[in-house]
Amino acid sequence: MGIEVLAVDLGGTNLRMAVVAENGHIEHRERCSTPHVNDPQAIVDAIAGLAELCHKRSSTGERITILGAAVPAILSLGEGKIDRAPNLPMLDGVPFKPLLEKALGIDVILENDATAAAIGEHWLGASRGCESSICVTLGTGVGGGIMLGGQPVRGPDGTAGEIGHICVEPNGHPCGCGSWGCIEQYASATAVVRMVGEIMAEQGTVADATKPLTAKEVYAAAKQGNRAAVETFRQMGSYLGLTLAGLVNALNPDAVVIAGGMSAAWDMFFEEMREQITKRAFRVPALRVKLVRAELGDDAGILGVASLAHARLKQGI
Amino acid sequence: MGIEVLAVDLGGTNLRMAVVAENGHIEHRERCSTPHVNDPQAIVDAIAGLAELCHKRSSTGERITILGAAVPAILSLGEGKIDRAPNLPMLDGVPFKPLLEKALGIDVILENDATAAAIGEHWLGASRGCESSICVTLGTGVGGGIMLGGQPVRGPDGTAGEIGHICVEPNGHPCGCGSWGCIEQYASATAVVRMVGEIMAEQGTVADATKPLTAKEVYAAAKQGNRAAVETFRQMGSYLGLTLAGLVNALNPDAVVIAGGMSAAWDMFFEEMREQITKRAFRVPALRVKLVRAELGDDAGILGVASLAHARLKQGI
Repeated sequence: MGIEVLAVDLGGTNLRMAVVAENGHIEHRERCSTPHVNDPQAIVDAIAGLAELCHKRSSTGERITILGAAVPAILSLGEGKIDRAPNLPMLDGVPFKPLLEKALGIDVILENDATAAAIGEHWLGASRGCESSICVTLGTGVGGGIMLGGQPVRGPDGTAGEIGHICVEPNGHPCGCGSWGCIEQYASATAVVRMVGEIMAEQGTVADATKPLTAKEVYAAAKQGNRAAVETFRQMGSYLGLTLAGLVNALNPDAVVIAGGMSAAWDMFFEEMREQITKRAFRVPALRVKLVRAELGDDAGILGVASLAHARLKQGI
Repeated sequence: MGIEVLAVDLGGTNLRMAVVAENGHIEHRERCSTPHVNDPQAIVDAIAGLAELCHKRSSTGERITILGAAVPAILSLGEGKIDRAPNLPMLDGVPFKPLLEKALGIDVILENDATAAAIGEHWLGASRGCESSICVTLGTGVGGGIMLGGQPVRGPDGTAGEIGHICVEPNGHPCGCGSWGCIEQYASATAVVRMVGEIMAEQGTVADATKPLTAKEVYAAAKQGNRAAVETFRQMGSYLGLTLAGLVNALNPDAVVIAGGMSAAWDMFFEEMREQITKRAFRVPALRVKLVRAELGDDAGILGVASLAHARLKQGI
């Protein structure tokens, strides 16, 4: 059978768990809705329940001894504490690792979800074989994870990788983080919906006010040649390229991986993004950097923490 | 006597060499003007000449076996080649390491000058004891070096650390690098001279056209309360803070070290720089990061390459 680990991706909507073999093969999956009650123990119990199901239903003979958990939060990795989880505020300040270890009776490794995705893509996805890579997750917000020398960059507080909150417009749109003009305000699904409205207003087009658009609808409109929608994705690509050009100059990565739901709009923003990088970054690192779409989809985070768990087991042996 | 190494800082104006002990003590110094003729061999010969002087005039008994060289260039470290040296164009494309090794008859280590300064400050200067730091050199241009986990970030092409060419104004001033709106256009000595002119024009102040200002004069004017000069440094601090806030979010460093000639204007831009970082970066990494002035002055690069040379000797033993 080989060695297996448990890996969980704690999302704002779903809790997804998998049993993952040493080669990254997903042996078994379980999922449930993320409990949204004002008690962190509800989430701990839900994870423990999924782990129990994984043990019962998967073909694993021996009991698995470690769980990797990808968490949408700023973590104090030393203490295994969640500092701030914007989408799961009941976890703010919670000593999540000790709680999980007590409930599951096995070792737990926590990782920020965006960093976990970068590790996963580095292990088995779009940036495999690359020593250094930047993984940008375009979703409701913009997340990021940085790998240098084959290792994730976490920083002393574990907060490194917050690429979504690099400023691209000094007097730009206010951001949920407290700053303004962050790339998250120009390249997330939320941003696309706001921007298309602004651009329609500029163009004098009247939007159908009875039906708020979704990012998916803006993309569909762009595919049909709608001017405002096309311009929205052009601007998104331009701002994203500007941000990435700065990171290419600062870090000289082998690859930039674009992940998250908004990466589905790749064909509408890629050309402008690449052009900005080509025009703005130094020639040598701009030629070097591979610009690629993520390959692991929703499994990137799970595979990232599974990779950490397998590495921990190997160190232990 | 202990082990000694040679270290040279190849500047656009001066060539400065030192004999450096294992503890960083500078035992002996030599300097000469940087030859500006269209022949790379002239620079190689000048360095060999200084090395000979160091051997003769210093009290070193044994012949030193290694030279570290801080070079103002983008390097291909693998081949020991200079890709591009904007201020010493006769070195573009030159296999500098083999040429130096042939002329001096000893091992040579090349390093980008801004990265060397970051290593020097990490070893013996303002960021000693810090695992991760960002060193920003504010001079004629804006250079940078990044240390993570106690090691310099070079990237596969050796071009990492080019913080000066992160964009802060999407439609900003054209930059020598080919991009536009780079922080170099808002925080270098060159930028300060341009900006004070722009601000005086906005304020309707007439500049004395017979006498172009220097950055030093703009600073002196700011110290005396000149409105345009004060506003220039406020804007410089604001843009610098915006850039650093992004790097604090992306890399979560222990320290940011401000080096270079323009760091002398620290008291005129520091408050605004700090305020932008506090307002824009995440709370935890913003509280973490120490904002400090460089301590090693012109010796940062020399000490940085000396540290690399000593490390190489230790590996060799």
